[in-house]
Amino acid sequence: MSLNNIFQYFVPKDRVFFPLFEQASGNLIKLGEALQEAVNTKDDSRRTDLIKVIDDLEHKGDDITHQIYLELGKNFITPFDREDIHSLASAIDDIADYIHGSANRMALYNVTTMTEPIMKITDLILQGCIDVDKAVRELKNLKNIRTITDSCVRINSMENQADYIFDKAVAQLFEYEADAKEIIKYKEILSALETATDKCEDVANVLESILVKNA
Amino acid sequence: MSLNNIFQYFVPKDRVFFPLFEQASGNLIKLGEALQEAVNTKDDSRRTDLIKVIDDLEHKGDDITHQIYLELGKNFITPFDREDIHSLASAIDDIADYIHGSANRMALYNVTTMTEPIMKITDLILQGCIDVDKAVRELKNLKNIRTITDSCVRINSMENQADYIFDKAVAQLFEYEADAKEIIKYKEILSALETATDKCEDVANVLESILVKNA
Amino acid sequence: MSLNNIFQYFVPKDRVFFPLFEQASGNLIKLGEALQEAVNTKDDSRRTDLIKVIDDLEHKGDDITHQIYLELGKNFITPFDREDIHSLASAIDDIADYIHGSANRMALYNVTTMTEPIMKITDLILQGCIDVDKAVRELKNLKNIRTITDSCVRINSMENQADYIFDKAVAQLFEYEADAKEIIKYKEILSALETATDKCEDVANVLESILVKNA
Repeated sequence: MSLNNIFQYFVPKDRVFFPLFEQASGNLIKLGEALQEAVNTKDDSRRTDLIKVIDDLEHKGDDITHQIYLELGKNFITPFDREDIHSLASAIDDIADYIHGSANRMALYNVTTMTEPIMKITDLILQGCIDVDKAVRELKNLKNIRTITDSCVRINSMENQADYIFDKAVAQLFEYEADAKEIIKYKEILSALETATDKCEDVANVLESILVKNA
Repeated sequence: MSLNNIFQYFVPKDRVFFPLFEQASGNLIKLGEALQEAVNTKDDSRRTDLIKVIDDLEHKGDDITHQIYLELGKNFITPFDREDIHSLASAIDDIADYIHGSANRMALYNVTTMTEPIMKITDLILQGCIDVDKAVRELKNLKNIRTITDSCVRINSMENQADYIFDKAVAQLFEYEADAKEIIKYKEILSALETATDKCEDVANVLESILVKNA
Repeated sequence: MSLNNIFQYFVPKDRVFFPLFEQASGNLIKLGEALQEAVNTKDDSRRTDLIKVIDDLEHKGDDITHQIYLELGKNFITPFDREDIHSLASAIDDIADYIHGSANRMALYNVTTMTEPIMKITDLILQGCIDVDKAVRELKNLKNIRTITDSCVRINSMENQADYIFDKAVAQLFEYEADAKEIIKYKEILSALETATDKCEDVANVLESILVKNA
C-alpha cells in the first residue's frame, strides 16, 4: 500500500504534532491526579488549593490545544489526517474541560462531603487519562498498535464501569437523600465526572479511527 | 461518474458489512419492541423480565458494533467510506444505549407507574427503529434511494414529535407534581427516551451524508 | 498548491451555497434579537408574541438548512468539502434550535421573571450570532481570513463567559432559591441558553476546520 509507505516515511520526521499531543496527554494525567487528591483529602483548604491547580492545568491544556490548531494551519504535511489531528486535540481538551467542570461544581455548590461514587469515578477518570496518555505516546511510531488498541479497550471498559457507578449513585440519592436540592447538586457533580469518562471514550474512538485509516 | 461505477461494482460483492448492519438494525427493532412492552405492561415482574431482555439485547448490539469495527480493520475495500461505516455503526449503537439507559433508569429509580408521554415517546422510538432498519436494508443496492430518504424524513418528523411530547411532559410535571424528587426521576427517564429519538436522527444524518457522497 | 487554485477558481462562481448560508446566519441574528427582546420586555403579552416569532424563525431556519442539504445532493461541485457544508449547515441549525428551545421552555414552564444571568447569556448569544454571520459572509472570498479567525476567537471567548455566568447562576440558585422546583426550571432554561453558546462554538470549530483545509 503505497499511501501507507508515504505515511511511514513522514511519521519519524514529525517534530511538531507528537510532542504537542504528548504534552496534552501528560497534562491530563496531572489533572486526573489533582482531582483524585481533591476528592480524597479531608482538608478543605487543601481541596481549595487543588481546585485552583486544576484551573491552571485546564488553562495550560487550552494553550496546548490552541497551539495544535495553529500548527495545523502552518503545516502542509501532517502525520495523519488534518481532521483527525483536530478531532484528537479537541477530544483531549474535552476531557480536561469536564475534569475542570466537576471540580468547579464542587467549589461553586459548596460540596465538601465527597461520597464513595464520586471517589470511584474519579479513580476511573485518572485511569482513563493514563490510558489516553499511553496510547497517544504510541501514535508516533504505530509499531505497537496493540498497545493502542489495548488502551482503547480498557478505556471503553472503564467508561462502562463509570456509567454503572453513576446510575447506582443517582438511584441511591433518590432512595436515601430527602433534600431535592442536595440530589440535584450531587447529580450534577456525578454527571460532570461521568461525562469526563465519556470524553475518554471519544478519544479512544478517534484513536481507533486513526488506526483504521493508517495501520 | 467513474467513481460511482467503481462503487456500484464493489457493492454487490460486499458480504461483510451489510449483513452486520442488518443484524444491528434488526436488533434495534427487538429493543424497541421490548421497551414498548415494558412500559405498557401492568405486570411488574413481566417488566423486570423485559428490562433483563433489553440488557441482553444491548450487549448483543455491542458485540455486533465491535465486529463491524474489527472488520473495518481487516478489510481494505469497504462498500462506502470507512469513516461513514464507523459513524453509522456507532450511531446505531447509541440508539441501543439510550433505549437500554431509559429502561435501566425505570428499574434503578423504582419507577413502575408509566405515564402517557413515556408510552408515546416509546411508540415513536419503535417507529424510529423500524425506519432505521428499513433504510439500512436499502443501503446494499442504493437502487431505492427514495426509500432511504423517505425513512430519514419520517425519522426527522418522529424526532420533532418526541421533542414536543417531552417538552409538554416536563411542563406538566412542574405544574401537577408537587414532589421535586419525582419531577427529577421522570424528567431523567423522559430525557433518556427523548435522546434515543435524537440518536435515530443522528443515524438519519449519517445515512443522508452517505447518500450525498455515493448516490 | 494546485488544489487551492481550483478552489479559488470555483468559489466566485458559487451562486448556490453562499447565499443560503448567508440567509441562515442572517436568520440567526433575527432569532438572537427576538430572544433578547423577549427576556428584557416587562410586557408578558409582548413576550408571548416574540416567542411566536422565534417559533416562526426557527421553522424558516429549518427550511434553509433543508435547502442546503437538497443542493448538496444536486451539485457535484461545491465550494468546499461536502462534509463541511453539511456540518456548517447543521451547526447553524443547532444554534437556532437551542435559541428556540430556551424560549420554548420559558413559555412551557410559565417563567416570566427573567433574571440577570438569563439576560446576560442572551446578550452573549446575540453577540455570537452576529459573529457567526460576520464569519459566514467572509467564506465566499476567503480573502479576509483574519476576519473569520477573529470572529472565531470572539465566539470562543463569548462561550467561556457564558459558561462562567451559567455556573455562577446555578450556584446562586442553590444558595438563594428554597424551592427545588424553581431551581430545576431556571437551571433548564439557563442550560438551554448556555448550550446555544456551545453551538456557536461548534460553528467556530467547523469554520476553523474549513480554513485549515482550504486556506
